[in-house]
Amino acid sequence: MTRQQLIEQIRKKRSYLCVGLDTDRTKIPAHLQGHVDPVFEFNRQIIDATKDHCVAYKINTAFYEADGVKGWETMERTVQYISGDHFKIADAKRGDIGNTSTQYAKAFFETMPFDAITVAPYMGSDSVQPFLAYKDKWTILLGLTSNAGAADFELQQAGNGLLYEKVLRTASGWGSTENLMFVVGATKPEWFERIRALTPDHFYLVPGVGAQGGSLREISVKAMNRDVGLLVNVGRDIIFSGRGEDFAEKAEAKAQEYAKEMAGYLG
Amino acid sequence: MTRQQLIEQIRKKRSYLCVGLDTDRTKIPAHLQGHVDPVFEFNRQIIDATKDHCVAYKINTAFYEADGVKGWETMERTVQYISGDHFKIADAKRGDIGNTSTQYAKAFFETMPFDAITVAPYMGSDSVQPFLAYKDKWTILLGLTSNAGAADFELQQAGNGLLYEKVLRTASGWGSTENLMFVVGATKPEWFERIRALTPDHFYLVPGVGAQGGSLREISVKAMNRDVGLLVNVGRDIIFSGRGEDFAEKAEAKAQEYAKEMAGYLG
Repeated sequence: MTRQQLIEQIRKKRSYLCVGLDTDRTKIPAHLQGHVDPVFEFNRQIIDATKDHCVAYKINTAFYEADGVKGWETMERTVQYISGDHFKIADAKRGDIGNTSTQYAKAFFETMPFDAITVAPYMGSDSVQPFLAYKDKWTILLGLTSNAGAADFELQQAGNGLLYEKVLRTASGWGSTENLMFVVGATKPEWFERIRALTPDHFYLVPGVGAQGGSLREISVKAMNRDVGLLVNVGRDIIFSGRGEDFAEKAEAKAQEYAKEMAGYLG
Repeated sequence: MTRQQLIEQIRKKRSYLCVGLDTDRTKIPAHLQGHVDPVFEFNRQIIDATKDHCVAYKINTAFYEADGVKGWETMERTVQYISGDHFKIADAKRGDIGNTSTQYAKAFFETMPFDAITVAPYMGSDSVQPFLAYKDKWTILLGLTSNAGAADFELQQAGNGLLYEKVLRTASGWGSTENLMFVVGATKPEWFERIRALTPDHFYLVPGVGAQGGSLREISVKAMNRDVGLLVNVGRDIIFSGRGEDFAEKAEAKAQEYAKEMAGYLG
């Protein structure tokens, strides 16, 4: 999906919501546990219920890998189930030397039809380039993450700024606003304006709203740009908002609530 | 596998060689391509041929993920095939917020029987702790990697040292020499002595010897400690040293050559 197509979806739906499919098998409703593939069945119903309220889905690979081969199968089925109108993110935090990143890119961009993958910046340019080499695919590089551990390195001094700022500045030159986004955690609102000043035109994937306590309002007010420039991810707070037979309706109501708030910020 | 058991294996075999199973399906000999699972058949023969000359195997997850579900199956079969006397490393470069890293730890330490996993440090302490929480399992944190991109961030100033030094110093406190190792690339010999001074007792997983051009001699002379403290990985240079029907014999000869050189450094 191109930047233009993504922006069109956001304008059309008046939503920049990304639904996070961090599907923990132990947390899905009891009545689904008898299915051949309970996690896929759960995802399928969540996708059907939320698809009109979001523009993106983010599959957190860890939750699928934890189930081994079966989990990987579920991940493939899930990403194949999502419509071409939705931006499909593999939240995989990959990154390795060039010939290895090339294999990861193949896994998520060819073997599976993701539009984007999250990538860790530590190993530098040649670990990221193989992802950027794919036309019409996106690399979403970790900038400032939503967890407490961001303080250990990301928020430490590095040259004439903080490490995450160095990552944003340096990596901006590796790709363009058409194929590179950054992860910016919603739990760190005090940094949004500095981040936007450094990367005025990029899209951000924003985790941390919902279970992690970040504010949708703050990120929207402080970091939206003229093309919106935000994909705000909500995982647990949507997909596990109900735990009974009506889980999909509960998820839809929650997704709609987020989308409605977003429509307000879109003005 | 405990540190003591690993050291015993090294002393017994007079080798600190780790064979890297970066098995690119397109590069395995033609006569294996007809097998039901050519990559597993290749790995099996490589393992049988090299097992007396190495103490560890490193499975590079990217090469398996590139083949999707089938590749993940091959990875599971391969790690299950390796004997309990060998240290089994998932070279996966994972790392995410706590509840997600917990799922990755489950994938590699419970669903699959790896002894160790490589982890990226960027997201800080709480992204690494879930791996360290496993008793008798190891976290191998990226320190100074072997690729050119290490210059972008790892070798940049961060506080009163370089970023990779900050990672070594900070992360040393997260685990112990019994459950934490660091990745130190063999291609950067000018830094070995500084690295060893910062982390005198830790084991290092050393990539970059062989195809990437690093010197076994330099890392051995400059970074060996009294418990050896090194696992030197060689991938392509061993597993693809022959491309015909005698590939396993060629691989054995190459592994033996490395082990012989190592025996010399062990004195």
